[in-house]
Amino acid sequence: MRSRNPEQEPVAGGGLLHRRALLVAGGLSLGAVEVTARESGGSAAPAWMRTQGAPLSGYGGRAPAAEKIERIVGDLSFPSSGSSRTPLQLLAGTITPSSLHFERHHGGVPAIDPTRHELLIHGLVKRPLIFRFEDLLRYPTETRILFLECSGNSGALGAAKPEQVSAGALHGLLSGTEWTGIRLSTLLDEAQVSSDGRWVQAEGADAAAMARSVPLAKCLDDALIALYQNGEPLRPEQGYPMRLLLPGYEGNTSIKWLRRLKVMANPAFSREETSKYTDLLPDGRAEMFSLAMGVKSAILQPSFGLDLRDPGYHQISGLAWSGRGRIRKVEVSADGGKSWAEAALTEPVLSKALTRFTIPWAWSGGPAVLMSRATDETGAVQPTRSDWQARYKGGRGYHNNSIQAWGVDRHGRVSHVYA
Amino acid sequence: MRSRNPEQEPVAGGGLLHRRALLVAGGLSLGAVEVTARESGGSAAPAWMRTQGAPLSGYGGRAPAAEKIERIVGDLSFPSSGSSRTPLQLLAGTITPSSLHFERHHGGVPAIDPTRHELLIHGLVKRPLIFRFEDLLRYPTETRILFLECSGNSGALGAAKPEQVSAGALHGLLSGTEWTGIRLSTLLDEAQVSSDGRWVQAEGADAAAMARSVPLAKCLDDALIALYQNGEPLRPEQGYPMRLLLPGYEGNTSIKWLRRLKVMANPAFSREETSKYTDLLPDGRAEMFSLAMGVKSAILQPSFGLDLRDPGYHQISGLAWSGRGRIRKVEVSADGGKSWAEAALTEPVLSKALTRFTIPWAWSGGPAVLMSRATDETGAVQPTRSDWQARYKGGRGYHNNSIQAWGVDRHGRVSHVYA
Repeated sequence: MRSRNPEQEPVAGGGLLHRRALLVAGGLSLGAVEVTARESGGSAAPAWMRTQGAPLSGYGGRAPAAEKIERIVGDLSFPSSGSSRTPLQLLAGTITPSSLHFERHHGGVPAIDPTRHELLIHGLVKRPLIFRFEDLLRYPTETRILFLECSGNSGALGAAKPEQVSAGALHGLLSGTEWTGIRLSTLLDEAQVSSDGRWVQAEGADAAAMARSVPLAKCLDDALIALYQNGEPLRPEQGYPMRLLLPGYEGNTSIKWLRRLKVMANPAFSREETSKYTDLLPDGRAEMFSLAMGVKSAILQPSFGLDLRDPGYHQISGLAWSGRGRIRKVEVSADGGKSWAEAALTEPVLSKALTRFTIPWAWSGGPAVLMSRATDETGAVQPTRSDWQARYKGGRGYHNNSIQAWGVDRHGRVSHVYA
Repeated sequence: MRSRNPEQEPVAGGGLLHRRALLVAGGLSLGAVEVTARESGGSAAPAWMRTQGAPLSGYGGRAPAAEKIERIVGDLSFPSSGSSRTPLQLLAGTITPSSLHFERHHGGVPAIDPTRHELLIHGLVKRPLIFRFEDLLRYPTETRILFLECSGNSGALGAAKPEQVSAGALHGLLSGTEWTGIRLSTLLDEAQVSSDGRWVQAEGADAAAMARSVPLAKCLDDALIALYQNGEPLRPEQGYPMRLLLPGYEGNTSIKWLRRLKVMANPAFSREETSKYTDLLPDGRAEMFSLAMGVKSAILQPSFGLDLRDPGYHQISGLAWSGRGRIRKVEVSADGGKSWAEAALTEPVLSKALTRFTIPWAWSGGPAVLMSRATDETGAVQPTRSDWQARYKGGRGYHNNSIQAWGVDRHGRVSHVYA
C-alpha cells in the first residue's frame, strides 16, 4: 500500500476494509508493473500471434493449465458407494460447471436407456400414472438456479482436531447450477392425490434403489422433476434422464434416476432416513427429517493450500446459502470473531441458491483468523462451532452448518483452525 | 384435451393460452399413461438396477444420448476464420454450458502460455502499466450473468427467401453465461487516464491481432476483464487467459486473449469497425459503432427440425435479450402477428442477460404462424422484418434484431417463413 486514505481505514479488526472501499483511488498497488514511455509502445508479438490458431470445435474443452481442476474423489468404502467434491477454492462466481458438480452415489451411476425409462406415480392417488421420458419433454418447464448440498457436507468440523485439507475437501459436497424441469405439482395434480396423502416416497433406478420420504406439501410447493442442468440434458451422475429436485432440502432427498413416487399417509422410515442422515442429540434421541439445510457460509479464498504471498490488499471471497430462502447478509471477521464487517453480496441474491460474498482486506502480515457468518431472510444466523457441538452429540454428524475458521500465520500460510 | 374450462380459453388468436393457465386442473392430459391398480404396485427393476453402476469421476461427461448436441460449425472461408453457433433449440434455461458457447475467430484459437501473457494499458495514461495474469488473480472480482451476441447473428433474415435451418443456425451466435473478472475501471484508475482520453482500442493476442475501439465511458462503466466463465478459468476459445467483456455490446468488441488497451482521443477506425460490422443505409452512408445490441427475441421450441407430433397442448419457449438493460415483456403471436399474448418470463430477469419466456399453446391442428416480440426496459420494441429491411440497405447485414416467424402446417411441420 502506497498511502492511506479514509476509504482504506479498517472497519473491523485485523484490517478488514469497507466492502465498497475504492482501492486504487487511494494509491493501492496490487502488483502491476509501471513501464517506461518507450516500452509502452507495445511489446513484441508473442509466438502464438505469429501462427494461425486452432479451428472451431463442436464441444469445447479446457485450457491445459485448467485441467488440474477436478472433483476431489474420496475413498470408496464399497466400490460404487461414495462421494466426490467440488473444488470450490479453485472456482469463481456462483455457477458450478456440471462436470464439477459434486457426486454422492449409493450404488454407482446407472447406464439408463432413456427410451426405456419410466416414472410411476402411485400409492394414494386416484389415477396411477406412468410417464415416459419422451412424454415429459412435452410438459411446461420451469427454470431455477439452486444450490444442492449433501447433509454430510462439512462433517469434518466434528473431528477432534481440525483437518488440514482444502476448502473443497471440507465443504465441497455443495454445488450451484441452473435446473430446468417440470413442476412436480403438475404431475401430482394429474394423478389426483387422495385426501389422506401426506408424504411421498421417491425411489431411484440405481442399484441401491435409493429412496427417501418427503412431505407431500414440499412436492406441491416448489419441487421439480429436473430434466436439464445448466441448459443441457442431465449428466449421468446427476440423474439422467430425470431426477427429483427439492430446492433447499438435503441433497439425497433429490432422488436421482427417479423411477417412482409413491404417495403415502406416513414416511416409509427407510434406512436412509433412520439409521443414516439423522442428528443424534446429547440425550441419545435423534432428530429425523431435518430436511431444509441450515444457513451457512464458507470462506474459499484464501483457504488451506491458497497461501498469501505478501502483506497488503487481498480479497476475501466465499459462498453463502440457506435452504430456507435468500441470504440477508454475510459478516466476516479477521480477528477470530472479536469484530465483524459486512461483506458485499454479488447480485442477484436468489432464494435457495449460492450467493458469492467478497470483502477487501489489508493484511498487516501478522497472524489472523478469518471467519464468515451468514444470516438468511428468516433471521437465522449461522452458529459457532462450539454452539453446534453442544447441541448435538459429538462426532462427524450431519447438517453441520457451523462457522469454520482459517488461521493465517506470519508467513501467509493458511491452516484450518478451531477458534 | 379432455375438457375445456375457463383457464384454458385462448387469450389470443391461434389458441394461445394465458401464461399462467392451470393446464392439468382442467383435465388436460399431456401423454401420461394411466395404469391399473395391479400394475401400480411398481414395475420390475430394469437391467441397470441389477448391477452396480459406474464409479465417481474427476470431471464428468455427458450421457451418450446427449452427445449429439454440438455447436453448429460453419464453413470456413479461411482455415482459422469462422464461427460456430450454439444449438439453442436443443438447450433449456438461460445458462449456456461453456463447451457450447458460440465461437467467432478471426485467426483461430491461440495456444497461450498464461505465465508469459501480459496485458498492457498505455496511450493517454499517466502511468503505462503491464499486468501479468498472475497479478490480476489478486484483484477484486465481480460476477455477472450476461449474454454475448455476435453482430452478424440472424443475418440470414436478410436473405431473399427464408432459409430452412434450425433456430440455432439462425440465431445461435448468441450464448449466456456467468462471467467473473475485474472491473476494468479499477485498472484504468491505476493507470491514471489523461483528461483527453475518450476511446480505448483493445487488441487480442491472436494471429489476427483482432482490435476494436470502444468508448472510454463504457470501459469506466460496467466493463470487465473476464478471467472465469461459469466458475472455471476461461476456455481457450473464449479468450483464455483473459478477455474484455463489454456487457450488452456486439460480441466482437469483447476482445478475446486481451493483450493491449490503448487510451486514445478518437477511435482507431480499424478494418473491423469500418469495412466490417457497419450498417449500410439506403442512401449509401453507413452507421458505425452500433455497439449496444438491440432488443430481440426468438422462439426456439417449436422451431425448424422440432415438429409437432399431435394437436393439443404445447409449450412455446424462447429467449429474449437487450443490450440496453432488462427485458420488460415478450409477446407471442400464433396467427402471424394479428393478435398477441404476453408470455411468462423466468425469474430472475437480469440486465443484459438472456431471459427465458414461455407460453402455453393449444394447437388446433390447423396452420399457424408463430412470432415473438420483445420490449426492453427503455421501451424499445423489437421491429418487424419489413421495418428492419426498409431501414437498412438490403442484404445480410449486421445487427438484425427483427421478428422472425415459424410456420406450422397441418402435419405439424415447422418451417421458417417471412410473415
